[in-house]
Amino acid sequence: MAKKIRIIDSTLRDGMHAVSHQFTPEEMAEIAAGLDAAGIDTLEVSHGDGLGGSSYNYGFAAAKDEDYLKAVSQVLKNSKLGVLLLPGIGTAHDLEMAAKFGAKVVRVATHCTEADIGEQHIKIAKELGMEAIGFLMMSHMVPPEKLVEQAKLFESYGADAVYVTDSAGAMTPYDVKKRIEAVKDAISVPVGFHAHNNLGLAIGNTLAAIEAGATYVDGTTRGLGAGAGNSQTEILVAVLAKLGYETGVDLYKIMDVAEELVAPKMRRPQIVDKAALSLGYAGVYGSFLLHAMRAAEKFKVDVRDILIELGRLKTVGGQEDMIVDVAYELSKAKKQ
Amino acid sequence: MAKKIRIIDSTLRDGMHAVSHQFTPEEMAEIAAGLDAAGIDTLEVSHGDGLGGSSYNYGFAAAKDEDYLKAVSQVLKNSKLGVLLLPGIGTAHDLEMAAKFGAKVVRVATHCTEADIGEQHIKIAKELGMEAIGFLMMSHMVPPEKLVEQAKLFESYGADAVYVTDSAGAMTPYDVKKRIEAVKDAISVPVGFHAHNNLGLAIGNTLAAIEAGATYVDGTTRGLGAGAGNSQTEILVAVLAKLGYETGVDLYKIMDVAEELVAPKMRRPQIVDKAALSLGYAGVYGSFLLHAMRAAEKFKVDVRDILIELGRLKTVGGQEDMIVDVAYELSKAKKQ
Repeated sequence: MAKKIRIIDSTLRDGMHAVSHQFTPEEMAEIAAGLDAAGIDTLEVSHGDGLGGSSYNYGFAAAKDEDYLKAVSQVLKNSKLGVLLLPGIGTAHDLEMAAKFGAKVVRVATHCTEADIGEQHIKIAKELGMEAIGFLMMSHMVPPEKLVEQAKLFESYGADAVYVTDSAGAMTPYDVKKRIEAVKDAISVPVGFHAHNNLGLAIGNTLAAIEAGATYVDGTTRGLGAGAGNSQTEILVAVLAKLGYETGVDLYKIMDVAEELVAPKMRRPQIVDKAALSLGYAGVYGSFLLHAMRAAEKFKVDVRDILIELGRLKTVGGQEDMIVDVAYELSKAKKQ
Repeated sequence: MAKKIRIIDSTLRDGMHAVSHQFTPEEMAEIAAGLDAAGIDTLEVSHGDGLGGSSYNYGFAAAKDEDYLKAVSQVLKNSKLGVLLLPGIGTAHDLEMAAKFGAKVVRVATHCTEADIGEQHIKIAKELGMEAIGFLMMSHMVPPEKLVEQAKLFESYGADAVYVTDSAGAMTPYDVKKRIEAVKDAISVPVGFHAHNNLGLAIGNTLAAIEAGATYVDGTTRGLGAGAGNSQTEILVAVLAKLGYETGVDLYKIMDVAEELVAPKMRRPQIVDKAALSLGYAGVYGSFLLHAMRAAEKFKVDVRDILIELGRLKTVGGQEDMIVDVAYELSKAKKQ
């Protein structure tokens, strides 16, 4: 019997990054109806940075979280409605609102060493009757043992599944395999994998994850997403069909959604350009790029040297002030 | 010590497909100078369908083969100049011309079951003092044993290396691994791999090939190429550097060539759209697409059903007349 793989499509969440969070509720409803008809198991909907993300800091979305959720939940017949929540950006109140407007699944996303800040939200989600999934971001930054420790924490809070998330698109298939195998061995709930395509490996890494035991994988139609984008859902469906996996998704229908409903709404093609490749190679957050480019100009150093140094120092979101320090140190070293 | 990988960059050959063979000799010289300075081992230059490809059937190039070769060989300081030759399209005379204008490497490309039609050209290349590489196209269509037989033929003719070529971008990493391992075990000259990105696996498959023993791999800057394009050279360089392989290519320089010299000359972004994915999923030649679309319209069937049936029937270039038959049979079956 074919092995079942659950696809969580994040066109309407991670994909929001690629349209500067400007999908309208009507556009979301149109795409969601297509994804639902194609047989997508779960659709993730919200600002690119999750519930509560619409703000000066993360960019204002075209509409409110609840308007998106209302619009999408009205058209869904079979797919489950999911949301993303980053503790600190989204709140318990946002989660209650999402449940009220039909969200059945929440992914609680934390930095890969900080599962503990997701405890409360996992527990609230379970109380609300939702499926709760732990989502360990920037998983390339720590060795498998650390991910195991953090995945166990999420499981102990009651998470129904735990994701290894390659937020920077920095992993190779070998990195993925080691991490998924270790986490799979350590917990008894399903393991998921979320890829980014900065090193052109979104699909290859997703296959490596499945081979290593992941049964939940993410995609977005046309690869829409932050930076170089995600695994392209319609490609994933085609490749998994070729390999004999069952996704429940109709290949022709998902291809048509991508080509006819999503592509015309895109602002830019989802390619791996110099900026995206630099981020994946360095393994740093996309939000560092603009700051690093400004610092590179000011201190007359190559932006890639800054990004690589930030990666080596294992800087994380919130440490943007280090960018100028790094640029300054590099310019000093250059002069010597 | 790091393992050495030779990158053959085909931006100026396979990449010609993506610009309808309209690079000018001046544009080629500019890009070639950049690739040379970045440390690319070998550059392949010619019409997308190889020497002699410029024609009514395959599309006229902006200039003659010899003008391209002259323009590029003048700027090369370290990189070797290569050409592609498909026996039947290119001739022995073309090969002599290429050698005269500085080509040091020729890849003799045949369908994966027809290495024998490459014998003469491999031998002429060796007499001309060139490096001669056998290039087995559409390698997904036959099992590893058959590729082994054909690779041995190329080796017996004097080929200096043999390539497994995924012309339709139809292979998964497992398909690649099996084929490269089998060929590697059977011949004593180096084994190469040429990927296409129709299933989003160009980079993933190239890594699988290297893991299985390939030491020559192809790329094109920005992924420029037929259909969904090739492995993106600058990504390949980044990923191989991450994994500790030596390519001799300067990562920053190759990224800059892609971004500053190649990207501005592109006619369209190199993405995996519905057409490209359909071809990779079906495993058929890109040249079938337009014919299949016309037949689909005429017989009111889905173009993807035609392509998949053509893949199942293992049709090859030259059998375009079967497309209408397949469309007709599908429309009959639909009515019953």
